[in-house]
Amino acid sequence: MVTRTVDLRSDTVTRPTEEMRAAMVTAEVDDDVLAHDPTAFLLESEMAKIMGKEAALFVPSGTMGNLISVLVHCDIRASEVVLGDNSHIHIYENGGIATIGGVHPRTVKNNEDGTMDIHSIEAAIRDPAGELLFPTTRLICLENTHANSGGRCLSVEYTDRVGEVAKKHGLKLHIDGARIFNASVALGVPVHRLVQAADSVSVCLSKGLGAPVGSVIVGSETFITKARRLRKTLGGGMRQVGILCAAAVVALRKNLSKLEGDHKKAKILADGLNQINGLRVDAAKVETNIIYFKVMEYSRMTAERLCKYLKDHGILVIYEGEFRIRIVLHHQISASDVQYTLSCFQVTNLAHMHIHLCVY
Amino acid sequence: MVTRTVDLRSDTVTRPTEEMRAAMVTAEVDDDVLAHDPTAFLLESEMAKIMGKEAALFVPSGTMGNLISVLVHCDIRASEVVLGDNSHIHIYENGGIATIGGVHPRTVKNNEDGTMDIHSIEAAIRDPAGELLFPTTRLICLENTHANSGGRCLSVEYTDRVGEVAKKHGLKLHIDGARIFNASVALGVPVHRLVQAADSVSVCLSKGLGAPVGSVIVGSETFITKARRLRKTLGGGMRQVGILCAAAVVALRKNLSKLEGDHKKAKILADGLNQINGLRVDAAKVETNIIYFKVMEYSRMTAERLCKYLKDHGILVIYEGEFRIRIVLHHQISASDVQYTLSCFQVTNLAHMHIHLCVY
Amino acid sequence: MVTRTVDLRSDTVTRPTEEMRAAMVTAEVDDDVLAHDPTAFLLESEMAKIMGKEAALFVPSGTMGNLISVLVHCDIRASEVVLGDNSHIHIYENGGIATIGGVHPRTVKNNEDGTMDIHSIEAAIRDPAGELLFPTTRLICLENTHANSGGRCLSVEYTDRVGEVAKKHGLKLHIDGARIFNASVALGVPVHRLVQAADSVSVCLSKGLGAPVGSVIVGSETFITKARRLRKTLGGGMRQVGILCAAAVVALRKNLSKLEGDHKKAKILADGLNQINGLRVDAAKVETNIIYFKVMEYSRMTAERLCKYLKDHGILVIYEGEFRIRIVLHHQISASDVQYTLSCFQVTNLAHMHIHLCVY
Amino acid sequence: MVTRTVDLRSDTVTRPTEEMRAAMVTAEVDDDVLAHDPTAFLLESEMAKIMGKEAALFVPSGTMGNLISVLVHCDIRASEVVLGDNSHIHIYENGGIATIGGVHPRTVKNNEDGTMDIHSIEAAIRDPAGELLFPTTRLICLENTHANSGGRCLSVEYTDRVGEVAKKHGLKLHIDGARIFNASVALGVPVHRLVQAADSVSVCLSKGLGAPVGSVIVGSETFITKARRLRKTLGGGMRQVGILCAAAVVALRKNLSKLEGDHKKAKILADGLNQINGLRVDAAKVETNIIYFKVMEYSRMTAERLCKYLKDHGILVIYEGEFRIRIVLHHQISASDVQYTLSCFQVTNLAHMHIHLCVY
Repeated sequence: MVTRTVDLRSDTVTRPTEEMRAAMVTAEVDDDVLAHDPTAFLLESEMAKIMGKEAALFVPSGTMGNLISVLVHCDIRASEVVLGDNSHIHIYENGGIATIGGVHPRTVKNNEDGTMDIHSIEAAIRDPAGELLFPTTRLICLENTHANSGGRCLSVEYTDRVGEVAKKHGLKLHIDGARIFNASVALGVPVHRLVQAADSVSVCLSKGLGAPVGSVIVGSETFITKARRLRKTLGGGMRQVGILCAAAVVALRKNLSKLEGDHKKAKILADGLNQINGLRVDAAKVETNIIYFKVMEYSRMTAERLCKYLKDHGILVIYEGEFRIRIVLHHQISASDVQYTLSCFQVTNLAHMHIHLCVY
Repeated sequence: MVTRTVDLRSDTVTRPTEEMRAAMVTAEVDDDVLAHDPTAFLLESEMAKIMGKEAALFVPSGTMGNLISVLVHCDIRASEVVLGDNSHIHIYENGGIATIGGVHPRTVKNNEDGTMDIHSIEAAIRDPAGELLFPTTRLICLENTHANSGGRCLSVEYTDRVGEVAKKHGLKLHIDGARIFNASVALGVPVHRLVQAADSVSVCLSKGLGAPVGSVIVGSETFITKARRLRKTLGGGMRQVGILCAAAVVALRKNLSKLEGDHKKAKILADGLNQINGLRVDAAKVETNIIYFKVMEYSRMTAERLCKYLKDHGILVIYEGEFRIRIVLHHQISASDVQYTLSCFQVTNLAHMHIHLCVY
Repeated sequence: MVTRTVDLRSDTVTRPTEEMRAAMVTAEVDDDVLAHDPTAFLLESEMAKIMGKEAALFVPSGTMGNLISVLVHCDIRASEVVLGDNSHIHIYENGGIATIGGVHPRTVKNNEDGTMDIHSIEAAIRDPAGELLFPTTRLICLENTHANSGGRCLSVEYTDRVGEVAKKHGLKLHIDGARIFNASVALGVPVHRLVQAADSVSVCLSKGLGAPVGSVIVGSETFITKARRLRKTLGGGMRQVGILCAAAVVALRKNLSKLEGDHKKAKILADGLNQINGLRVDAAKVETNIIYFKVMEYSRMTAERLCKYLKDHGILVIYEGEFRIRIVLHHQISASDVQYTLSCFQVTNLAHMHIHLCVY
Repeated sequence: MVTRTVDLRSDTVTRPTEEMRAAMVTAEVDDDVLAHDPTAFLLESEMAKIMGKEAALFVPSGTMGNLISVLVHCDIRASEVVLGDNSHIHIYENGGIATIGGVHPRTVKNNEDGTMDIHSIEAAIRDPAGELLFPTTRLICLENTHANSGGRCLSVEYTDRVGEVAKKHGLKLHIDGARIFNASVALGVPVHRLVQAADSVSVCLSKGLGAPVGSVIVGSETFITKARRLRKTLGGGMRQVGILCAAAVVALRKNLSKLEGDHKKAKILADGLNQINGLRVDAAKVETNIIYFKVMEYSRMTAERLCKYLKDHGILVIYEGEFRIRIVLHHQISASDVQYTLSCFQVTNLAHMHIHLCVY
């Protein structure tokens, strides 16, 4: 019998706060397709300013934010984008940039820390002299924080260097900034500085910031004008969208300050897990709110069975492979939830648990 | 100085009602990407049942609903869709089915009443024997009510006949039912009967029904499974979308009954406009909540200047060409608004107004 | 027992002449992908000069010529092309511009003479002000001669007027000139004058000109540079293609003068068919080398059975529908072939033939 | 003054032999779009038989052969193909599978020998359980010989193992067999055995076999029927294509036996180059007719200047990067050409040459 649920699957699972719900009740709205919904306008203006870009656009999801951004930068047929082989866009967005947008992805190996080697990026850029045989490289994509690397941060220095490579070759730079605020907080760098080199950034509101729905993309006026049109084409233009934007404004104004706490809880949880026999977390790599941990083979346990065991105790995590589990912290996980989670693990060592599970 | 606004641009301009806003405050929500948001599930279930189909899916807009539907039915490369040359999908959705989906449109002339001649539909279907040269016809699209024809209704008989043609040739039938409830009400036919022949229908919640955002597509379980995946690809998968669905459930339960009133107000307005010297409405063609009227050339007035004059009096309409204006009624237009609108027109005949405007 | 074959299916069925075959034996060639095959260069240079354009490119087929042309002019996502609803590109090229290229076709009714009304073309061009909802019109396509209209010619005046419309709206004009030389000959106008308004033309070498394989597209240097790259992408870049180009050079130099004869033979055949009871040809509309004739219903004959009867007598034609047959003349149809063909028809009137066929 | 040309850029640069030219003169031809050109039919039948597949189709180029093959296997939207990160399809074919076909490429690292690790292939195949987020893997592509790895051969054992992986996951296997005959000869394995596990193979006729133009794709009847249609869509359907096929038949019948000689000449050349101070060839890796050699940095020479020097002596090679040059042998390079080439290198060591070039 589960008496308590601790949902650690993702930072997308948060429920809207009372304040957000209240904001939705009173939100001033208009038809954002025919005109400009005033609350959407407010959100977009605030976000553009925070990110240090000319303009912004609300979109229903981070996937659409990335899809639009890549397609706007690659609006000419036969475009190629250089991006990480372990990036969210390449792995988890249905291959939409190719299957919907006809953009050819050229991947570069993602290092453990989410970076791609600068010289590898440069080597992947096509020589315009060979364009009879090559697509045209038009865009480089970074992801900060880098989800599949465990939420690790790309530094200002690294981002700037990639920006220089882009400029040198006449390319655009897009940052999948689903969790860019986590990076900003963890690095102690203003977010606008962190994305200074980027021509566009997609920022998620429904991850750590806790808004119910939506992302915002930012860039130049020209970029956003094209993005608005493509949003309509994809079906992302919504009517009285101020309802959602009102909650997002609250998220932006109130929840940024909570990210630091999420990181601390992640550290505590990671350290705790690491002390459990049969589990391994590289705690030094837990820079923000994501933890990947390994179930060691010697434990005679598998990730699948461990996930099931946790679920039976109300703890929801994401199974990522035979010996790998993902945990994500967010503002609705309390210190007590962290302790409860650890206690479930600590009851016994895994080898023991294995026996226990086997006698079921 | 405008003292009053009557927004007749579209039925998409309604503001969410108090009841909708209240529902959003208390809506039970979950991450609709990772799991199934319970309120989304509720809305989808209700809609599927009302439409008489197996399953349903909430999408951010009618454009996405149509795009997904066409692309799911035409998921094999080299597909062709037969649709009206004056249909919303062909004219107002950015050509997305081709530019995003690679589906080749084959248009058939839309008659004044929004139908396409059955034999013309059949003639447009490609002969499979010639498929070395032809794309493969896979889908027929209807639109009910037909917006560009002034909101006219396709009958059950007509829809069934098109359905038979589709079946005979092994094609699917999709109905763009943005305003299918208006047709159901105007024809006095249950909506599930009206779409019985269709393999999929997209239904708008943010038009006459007055929800702030969203459409629902309905069809078979298999269709909806594919649609859900494509929604994710396009970026239409949203997190705590129950917020929007809660308002939509209210719209569906409470506002269907208001459509009849919208149609009556449209009739009154159409008849009134028709009595104004220099305007012409074919009142017999005003079957639902849309009115197209002509500004006669002899009036020495143009649609553009008339729109401006109306705007100065707080009346918002859509300019549709040098001598054509569109008006759409919805539940937030009162009988008094209709009278006020007519009074603005009636102040003077157009020829007079022309002179008046010229001396500005 | 067939003693003679008269192949009237198309002007694509010609066999290469002795002179062409001889030219292929001695053709100087090189790898046209790595460098520039000298014979390809010769052909392209001659064609560019004849057509009055800067540059030219050999392609394996007219379909590829049109596909490349449309895609080069519409190289930005969300492009729309205005073209005839009965045009070869729209009807007989697999919908490739949309299914391969993602270009949205907007059709305008083709009149009986292959033209589209100028005002209808202009009405189909999208208003850039509405581009939130519209694709961007970038191209108008004409077809001269217009195959499905029976090989009728578009005049210089008409073409120039369409060119002016294109210029006025900042669009490109492409001419599908598969049989542009037939038009030039029939109209008595130099071909470069006939295509003066066009930004690109695709010209077929393997139709009336009798080369075994290939078309050439012409346009500006910039256009051809882009076309060359897209040709490679589509797989139309060929190695020692000078083999084919050598035959094409012969076709261009020697067979242009034969087109007039084809037109005369068509006239004779059309007049002869018209005198047969049960057949109808609108002889005034036979302007070049194509004849469409009707099998009248009162003849109690159908096109299908007539085609079979003709085939039994060695005469090959194209069945185009229950009561419609297509015949195309070319330089390998002799005056004697025309007489033989007519004699097969004239043996008996169709009603008689009907009885005859029924007793088989 | 150059007195002699030795073209080592590629095996695509061969000139058609006298016998091929003679065959073109007498080739029986027909319109291969309307019917089936008899010589095309002959070539396709012979190739299908040699490759051990049901059916075959002539296409203008290897690029089109690969493009059609990938697109036919991936004819449903949202398909993904697993292929080598250094494969010809991924690097040198303009990204056509994505930019034209909307297929998402998922690359696996190509080892030095052109293989991809079996477990890496398997890891790249998407889990159907995650298809809400993933495209659907439908195809694995191999390349044999692997050009960018220096023409190295994939063994029967390796190919069969990949075939088993494909079968296990319900995928198709395509082999880019541009130089599959070179692999067959080098491995001493009948070609049909080498491609037994494949669902389709594209085979080039204008590389080592020396035909002027063309490739053939082979596979099941169903595959070829779909391929024929797509060939038409892309514009690869040609009229009297028997002209080219006649030369290809000669190539297939007469030139297979010459490949072994090409490999021997490559060995001799590689060994010779290796003895030159400042150059390095890994001779053990020269398995067929391709040589990649390095210009060592200590030589103070660069590939670019060396290429220029060679060109001045009539020796054409391909520059592949600052210190890398590609040489390809073919049947029109004689033993004497090989000796002449080596003599040009041997005149002096590179350091010396460097000085010499500097005084120009």
